[in-house]
Amino acid sequence: MSRRPTGSAPRVGLDDRLARVALSRLAEPGDLRMNTLVTDLGPVAVHEHLTSQHDLHGLLDDVGQRLEALDPERELVQAEERGIRFVVPGDPEWPAGLDDLRSADPLHDRGGVPIGLWVRGPLRLDELAGGVAVVGSRSSTTYGESVARDIAARVSLTGLTAVSGAAFGIDQAAHRGALASGAPTAAVLACGADRSYPAAHSTLLDHIATVGAVVSETAPGLPPTRIRFLSRNRLIAALTCGTVVVEAAARSGALNTANWAGRLHRVVMGVPGPVTSAPSQGVHQLLRSGAAALVTGGADVLELVGASGEHLVEEPRGPVRSRDRLSRRDQQVLDGVPVARAAPVDSVARAAGLGLLEVQSALSRLHRAGLVEHGEEGWRLAALAHD
Amino acid sequence: MSRRPTGSAPRVGLDDRLARVALSRLAEPGDLRMNTLVTDLGPVAVHEHLTSQHDLHGLLDDVGQRLEALDPERELVQAEERGIRFVVPGDPEWPAGLDDLRSADPLHDRGGVPIGLWVRGPLRLDELAGGVAVVGSRSSTTYGESVARDIAARVSLTGLTAVSGAAFGIDQAAHRGALASGAPTAAVLACGADRSYPAAHSTLLDHIATVGAVVSETAPGLPPTRIRFLSRNRLIAALTCGTVVVEAAARSGALNTANWAGRLHRVVMGVPGPVTSAPSQGVHQLLRSGAAALVTGGADVLELVGASGEHLVEEPRGPVRSRDRLSRRDQQVLDGVPVARAAPVDSVARAAGLGLLEVQSALSRLHRAGLVEHGEEGWRLAALAHD
Repeated sequence: MSRRPTGSAPRVGLDDRLARVALSRLAEPGDLRMNTLVTDLGPVAVHEHLTSQHDLHGLLDDVGQRLEALDPERELVQAEERGIRFVVPGDPEWPAGLDDLRSADPLHDRGGVPIGLWVRGPLRLDELAGGVAVVGSRSSTTYGESVARDIAARVSLTGLTAVSGAAFGIDQAAHRGALASGAPTAAVLACGADRSYPAAHSTLLDHIATVGAVVSETAPGLPPTRIRFLSRNRLIAALTCGTVVVEAAARSGALNTANWAGRLHRVVMGVPGPVTSAPSQGVHQLLRSGAAALVTGGADVLELVGASGEHLVEEPRGPVRSRDRLSRRDQQVLDGVPVARAAPVDSVARAAGLGLLEVQSALSRLHRAGLVEHGEEGWRLAALAHD
Repeated sequence: MSRRPTGSAPRVGLDDRLARVALSRLAEPGDLRMNTLVTDLGPVAVHEHLTSQHDLHGLLDDVGQRLEALDPERELVQAEERGIRFVVPGDPEWPAGLDDLRSADPLHDRGGVPIGLWVRGPLRLDELAGGVAVVGSRSSTTYGESVARDIAARVSLTGLTAVSGAAFGIDQAAHRGALASGAPTAAVLACGADRSYPAAHSTLLDHIATVGAVVSETAPGLPPTRIRFLSRNRLIAALTCGTVVVEAAARSGALNTANWAGRLHRVVMGVPGPVTSAPSQGVHQLLRSGAAALVTGGADVLELVGASGEHLVEEPRGPVRSRDRLSRRDQQVLDGVPVARAAPVDSVARAAGLGLLEVQSALSRLHRAGLVEHGEEGWRLAALAHD
């Protein structure tokens, strides 16, 4: 299922790619200094400097030694044996959105354009560009999971890719929603693309790798760490054009992803829930602060991320009532008819502010339409016409 | 319990009051033309014009005749016998907020400053000025009712009055929440203040009338009509400084109240709910459109309507984690420790981007703090430090 990395050789020199492999193995995901050096000077120059112990900015310890111990060609072959390709800037499938990470807030101590991404699965990364991230708490409710599943399915049915982090709770619900609609989905991991975290999701991840993509900035074989989770969140935001937070307790990692999405000028969206539900607290905070737009389902999401006018949502309008089909004058009479106790014609006429004769003929029409009732004491509504 | 209307005689001449009584009995609540004439020319002039059949703008049929058949002094006495007083502009308890109705959108075909308000109960109307309207669907859920009750109770405990419409569902929950906290509450009706609509709430309304106020623009004895409901909604909005919509299906009357609140430059607030819940649809529409601010409870409401800084809400922050008490360097090391499978010190050092010795002493500290575990294969987190 995987593609040979050499498929993109025409645009990226092998030295460049191998230097990136080595640096990807050496550096931590989201190491802003390293990523900035690689983006600015190119991987080959950085690699050369580091191996010749020109430790550019006191960046790392014993770096030269460790770099020399690496065998990037062998790494690539081993990765390929596990169905993993290494996608780097300049490759045809390199997603342009990742380059936005270059300009993101330099005061932040993590970030930058990744040196490369390890990818397992047939889905091309550049196909994620119009995609939507659906993220949220691991401690989710069945409500949240059901909404995440629906949003991912709806987004997938229009051909956009649902992206998430393969965690318990909302993440897995999003992946499953996409898969259930027969669409590929992308899981961005905080560990190597060959590993399964959480372990309970190894079948899910293998399935995603056969139809979609399992993506990681972390080199194959490496376990997840907190740094890697935080760095991973920026990729989920950068790879897509919008992030939906379905449920997130205060301080949830999903809020970190939403934060990155906002910083990268992506669309940030939040699904509300009961105010009594802890996993919705973080989302309500996002919505209150104005950092996220409220969405109630896939249609709202598509309207916000879609090309203009492409997915316009029809406002829910409630049932059309028989009242709506009346003339303005008949409506006016109807509005003057008592709700509960019946009243005589002249009382209705006064309430409606109209003449007696006019009101009498209107009442006959309304009676034929089944909207008013007539008894000994006069007229009353046949059904409640207000809420 | 009621006050004698003559208690305010020093400021409003009796002719003025009696003219208003007659006009209140003659005209429909929210009759914009009538209300504007009374505001601009004064009730005595309008009354004189109408009785002398100078039908100013083709306003009403056989008006002079009907006005002459009225006995406003008797009306006042009869009202007083039922514990109802008639509050008019110029009375000490006349709520200044109602005068804002004068300037509200003149293109709208209903509105205007009411000719007077019929009030049953000891609560002074001017005490509603800082109050909060809590409104919503009659077809509410237990979730919505519980939130409405809590908000009304919380608002009441700070001395602000909760105002609503005494309908089934959210309205009654709001009144009960206020009463449960030992505070008065005001119910604004679409029928006469002596009547109970819905009939099932007659005990509730009688209770409100003993500690708070039952208020209506509709003269005593008259039944509710759709026109009177819509006119009533503008009063709920105008009498308070903010309106909270708790649950409202699309086209709910509560949205009409919210609309009036916005037009009158009051604070408009909405409580979100599950996106799968029909009674929350209308609220989500309000929130999406930006017409309302999202509130999750009484504290949020108080922050938005309160005097600046008076009721500032502390953002929910989630539990303080032991991680937060670490030095920045120790946090950096902790962030490099694998989540699941253990790793040797040099791997942690590399992940943290720090020197071996430094990492070793940090790991000892973290171990003593119970944050990391140490086994044969190396170090791992003692507890998950991410979500």
